[in-house]
Amino acid sequence: MATIKDVARLAGVSVATVSRVINNSPKAGESSRTAVLVAMEELRYHPNANARALAQQSTETLGLIVSDVSDPFFGAMVKAVEQVAYATKNFLLIGNGYHNAEKERKAIEQLVRHRCAALVVHAKKLTDDELSVWMRQIPGMVLINRTLPEFQARCVALDDRYGAWLATRHLIQQGHQRIAIICSTHQISDATDRLQGYLDALEEYGIEVDDKLITYGEPDEIGGEHAMTELLGRGKNFTAVTCYNDPMAAGALSVLSDNSIDVPGQMSLIGFDDVLISRYLRPRLTTIRYPVVAMATQAAELALALANHQPLPEITNMFSPTLVRRHSVASINNVFEQN
Amino acid sequence: MATIKDVARLAGVSVATVSRVINNSPKAGESSRTAVLVAMEELRYHPNANARALAQQSTETLGLIVSDVSDPFFGAMVKAVEQVAYATKNFLLIGNGYHNAEKERKAIEQLVRHRCAALVVHAKKLTDDELSVWMRQIPGMVLINRTLPEFQARCVALDDRYGAWLATRHLIQQGHQRIAIICSTHQISDATDRLQGYLDALEEYGIEVDDKLITYGEPDEIGGEHAMTELLGRGKNFTAVTCYNDPMAAGALSVLSDNSIDVPGQMSLIGFDDVLISRYLRPRLTTIRYPVVAMATQAAELALALANHQPLPEITNMFSPTLVRRHSVASINNVFEQN
Repeated sequence: MATIKDVARLAGVSVATVSRVINNSPKAGESSRTAVLVAMEELRYHPNANARALAQQSTETLGLIVSDVSDPFFGAMVKAVEQVAYATKNFLLIGNGYHNAEKERKAIEQLVRHRCAALVVHAKKLTDDELSVWMRQIPGMVLINRTLPEFQARCVALDDRYGAWLATRHLIQQGHQRIAIICSTHQISDATDRLQGYLDALEEYGIEVDDKLITYGEPDEIGGEHAMTELLGRGKNFTAVTCYNDPMAAGALSVLSDNSIDVPGQMSLIGFDDVLISRYLRPRLTTIRYPVVAMATQAAELALALANHQPLPEITNMFSPTLVRRHSVASINNVFEQN
Repeated sequence: MATIKDVARLAGVSVATVSRVINNSPKAGESSRTAVLVAMEELRYHPNANARALAQQSTETLGLIVSDVSDPFFGAMVKAVEQVAYATKNFLLIGNGYHNAEKERKAIEQLVRHRCAALVVHAKKLTDDELSVWMRQIPGMVLINRTLPEFQARCVALDDRYGAWLATRHLIQQGHQRIAIICSTHQISDATDRLQGYLDALEEYGIEVDDKLITYGEPDEIGGEHAMTELLGRGKNFTAVTCYNDPMAAGALSVLSDNSIDVPGQMSLIGFDDVLISRYLRPRLTTIRYPVVAMATQAAELALALANHQPLPEITNMFSPTLVRRHSVASINNVFEQN
């Protein structure tokens, strides 16, 4: 089997130069680079990352687990973490948990096996107990969008209940009393906390809860379509809808539009997350902003600092969402005028 | 340092059971699982993937490089490849190239270092020469959305020129003659091929090219807004626009809507890719379907078969896009009536 010395000899450069090319150092000139790559190919020489990692024991890889990268919310999270990895010259490896405990576990195990000493984990299905075991085993592991009381300093989460309360209060302040909610069928804290925020706001303003105005769907566009269809099927005796997230709001909006129910003229609609799509819907979606970029950035910086035994950055463990007013909510007076 | 035997002793199970837990075998019962995890934690024992990989030399990781997972097009690609990985019990590692040669190179290097013998690579910025070196070095590497003549059997690509020709011909068949195009500023074959398809269709139907109707932007929503603003600024002497991709069409649509230019009443608009958002725009976007799921699935299956020296699946090396007719294109007669 060829060694690094063989490569150097064939390329006519020093071993140090081969090493620079392998490690992608900017000091390696373009002509050396080409000579080394050709020699490596000729000799079928592979710099063996495993042997290297065993010898060096260095952190060069940041791991990230999300639920589903094809969801735009997680796309934004990945991009933010990737930027931290790039700025700190770490490489990012990404795994998907797909809202499934077994896949979440497998994803963590695989990233650990690939020597990710720094890990940002979005896992909603593993139990607190199992996550605690992982947190103890991996000092550079940080949770995002989840709080374990025992490891609060290594968790970055959002106050979901407050966000949904804010959304519902905004509708109430516009005069709405008959307010429906489209919830997520996923059995995770985000779902229960957002429903709780809605219930809390209604209670605070003395509005009675009507179970017929509470409906559920998969937390995506199609789930939003189904949920809106179901709500309308039960009778259009509501003037506003608060949605679990923006993709569900997009689906709901599409059903309202197909049925010539004007938003916000006849129906107010509010989303959650403020993903990019919300600005390109018509009307532009009023929503609750999830500061996912700030949260993911802080989580990644914390994970790297923990893994490398560096001074810890100051981070916010519980973020607050904010209201983004666009054009999908109108006051009830306007609704009455137009109805 | 603790060994697997120490873990077995402390957990009160056999070494085989510890191994099953580490390898996530369904044969390991839940109580053994917990006992082993606790013992591993107690002894700070990590199954070392690097040592394991060196000993086993097995393929267990499929690598995927995309340009940017936060782009919904690549989100769909990741999901398709992930499904192949899951079905074949491989783990997927994802890297981003971010439309940058240096980052594309680094991403390939890192995945190779992490022992991805099977690699699906979407790289548009590396030169043919450099990619050829990689293709020779890594027998399980497959290119997606790019064709290297020397390695055509290991490439899965789309006929971009044909797709743009199809879009433009559809507009011409609806009676449009003054057709603008919103192109991508990225210097990649997708951009030049799609522009060429537009030019070919115009030529075929004897329509003169007007440089004032050709404009460019970043290939996202904001780029589409800028490009549409620029087109309108030059004078609204066109009745239809073909867009580089759906996000650009969403941005263009938003500018048209803000300026009370009705689509398709006064202006027809067609996208490219058929990402999820195109169904939730109003009007629903007429577009060109990029069969990204089929392409990514075939690329992943091919990469795994190559890496594992298995019989190769039959794949389509050059896919054809198709027209998806929704509601953003109208015939010119209707446009004249409404103008």
